[in-house]
Amino acid sequence: MSGTHSTGPRISRRLRLVPIAGRADAGARPEGKVYLVGAGPGDPELLTRRAARVLLAADVVVYDRLVSSAILDLAPDKARRLFVGKRKSRHALPQADVNALLVALAREGLTVVRLKGGDPFMFGRGGEELLACRAAGVPCEVVPGVSAALAAAASTGVPLTHRGLAQSVTFITGHAASSAEGGAEGRAEGGLEALDLDWAALSRPNHTLAVYMGLSTAGWIAERLMGAGLGPATPVVVVENASLPEERRITARLSGLGEAVKSLEGPAILIIGEVAALAADIHPESAADREVRVADLPSSLRSAL
Amino acid sequence: MSGTHSTGPRISRRLRLVPIAGRADAGARPEGKVYLVGAGPGDPELLTRRAARVLLAADVVVYDRLVSSAILDLAPDKARRLFVGKRKSRHALPQADVNALLVALAREGLTVVRLKGGDPFMFGRGGEELLACRAAGVPCEVVPGVSAALAAAASTGVPLTHRGLAQSVTFITGHAASSAEGGAEGRAEGGLEALDLDWAALSRPNHTLAVYMGLSTAGWIAERLMGAGLGPATPVVVVENASLPEERRITARLSGLGEAVKSLEGPAILIIGEVAALAADIHPESAADREVRVADLPSSLRSAL
Repeated sequence: MSGTHSTGPRISRRLRLVPIAGRADAGARPEGKVYLVGAGPGDPELLTRRAARVLLAADVVVYDRLVSSAILDLAPDKARRLFVGKRKSRHALPQADVNALLVALAREGLTVVRLKGGDPFMFGRGGEELLACRAAGVPCEVVPGVSAALAAAASTGVPLTHRGLAQSVTFITGHAASSAEGGAEGRAEGGLEALDLDWAALSRPNHTLAVYMGLSTAGWIAERLMGAGLGPATPVVVVENASLPEERRITARLSGLGEAVKSLEGPAILIIGEVAALAADIHPESAADREVRVADLPSSLRSAL
Repeated sequence: MSGTHSTGPRISRRLRLVPIAGRADAGARPEGKVYLVGAGPGDPELLTRRAARVLLAADVVVYDRLVSSAILDLAPDKARRLFVGKRKSRHALPQADVNALLVALAREGLTVVRLKGGDPFMFGRGGEELLACRAAGVPCEVVPGVSAALAAAASTGVPLTHRGLAQSVTFITGHAASSAEGGAEGRAEGGLEALDLDWAALSRPNHTLAVYMGLSTAGWIAERLMGAGLGPATPVVVVENASLPEERRITARLSGLGEAVKSLEGPAILIIGEVAALAADIHPESAADREVRVADLPSSLRSAL
């Protein structure tokens, strides 16, 4: 099974070999259901137990680009896999068509797992799919997932909130930003919204900004933030393919961000703010002289145990 | 095992019966390690597979109030459970003591699982514990989790971002807010930071605001937001104990928020913004007349399959 889902033609044949109408024609139609499932950042180990369980029960899995093959492999062999994201030279299925597809599959009595990278309700357009199911009277359950920025933070040791550095965190997407600029770097396409962000609000101190899909617009975003008053020396950490074996990380200053990301190309998260200065190896060689044993703990602590 | 972790004295005895120094004295000391693990919103099914795996290997689990007993039960019986959160009439262990405890336990060669509700790097103070480990040269791995606001959103069918309603989302905590007011409703305590939020920035349109631990300060926060220009009719959904069997949800308008939450008492998430108007039963009875079958899909979609 492994890998077969990544080739379009195989999927097409699969669909034709097992006509979707087959089950429904056999008598009383069972009730189908759509699960909008957060697949997490990519590492199958960061899937929730619920997501893994739902996948095991899938009749059909509808997925897009950010879902790794290792996760798709958790669905049963017999489950059909439908790719609706965009591939290199091919546009994604329009959102309205994805909505219609999910409803139609559930109407056939199928258990439909709609897998989305990260969390379905953080830049996943899961809300639109949920509303389509509701409008059609199709049962729909949302399974939350580990959003990519949280995985990027964990992997680099950069807390999104931290005492004295960031009391709040805002999540934006760089994709909308590109469309606002009339398609910077050829990324804009039908279905994107114009950008409607308050750069001054995003540039305030004691705050972290996490940007999804911000690689192609990183320099543009940095310009906007500096224009709104964020210091050019503000640290940034960029994590490409967070949680996957091919994960890459770079650190930069806001003023050099556009240049710094040029070597990256995969899906990436930008974490902008003072917390990014905490990025470091998780296992530093240091401080053997600062050993603390339980016996050395302050009495206030020992008495509390 | 179930339930024993919720009583302080039991934990104390456990610690004394099995002296922590025992393993280290037997010869070459094995290397300990600290795992900062996001336990998710409470439902054990929303734990990641990685978190469950790490728990199985724990020698000692250090946890606080927001971690459910069903999750603690995933650790081996032999693992010691140390409660460091605050209970009704008792203060939490100071953060510096928790840091020292984690380091000291790892120094004994133990596999230490520090379980935090939600995600360790979203209002979990995980950054402080990671830095303490780094300073001591103790290996530390961060396992991200499903943050509570994402579970609240999934459970109520309220997307945090949604086309035309919210292009970004900000996460804040209501706890800091209370301390800024000199301890509104008696919640402020040592270790909290003064509030440093830009209410105008948080009140902008096309934006969702998610508030953690905001129950006792909900009315205060609503006042600040309305004072900064957010409309009093802005919808809010409040989710108490998101993902747990005892989950409760209420919807309100911003102007009535303080009054509306008075019946709640558990840990709760406030989701403030136009997206909250989408809160609804996930399984509505409706629209049987809008059935779509695969055969009815537009040809553009069928040809793409």
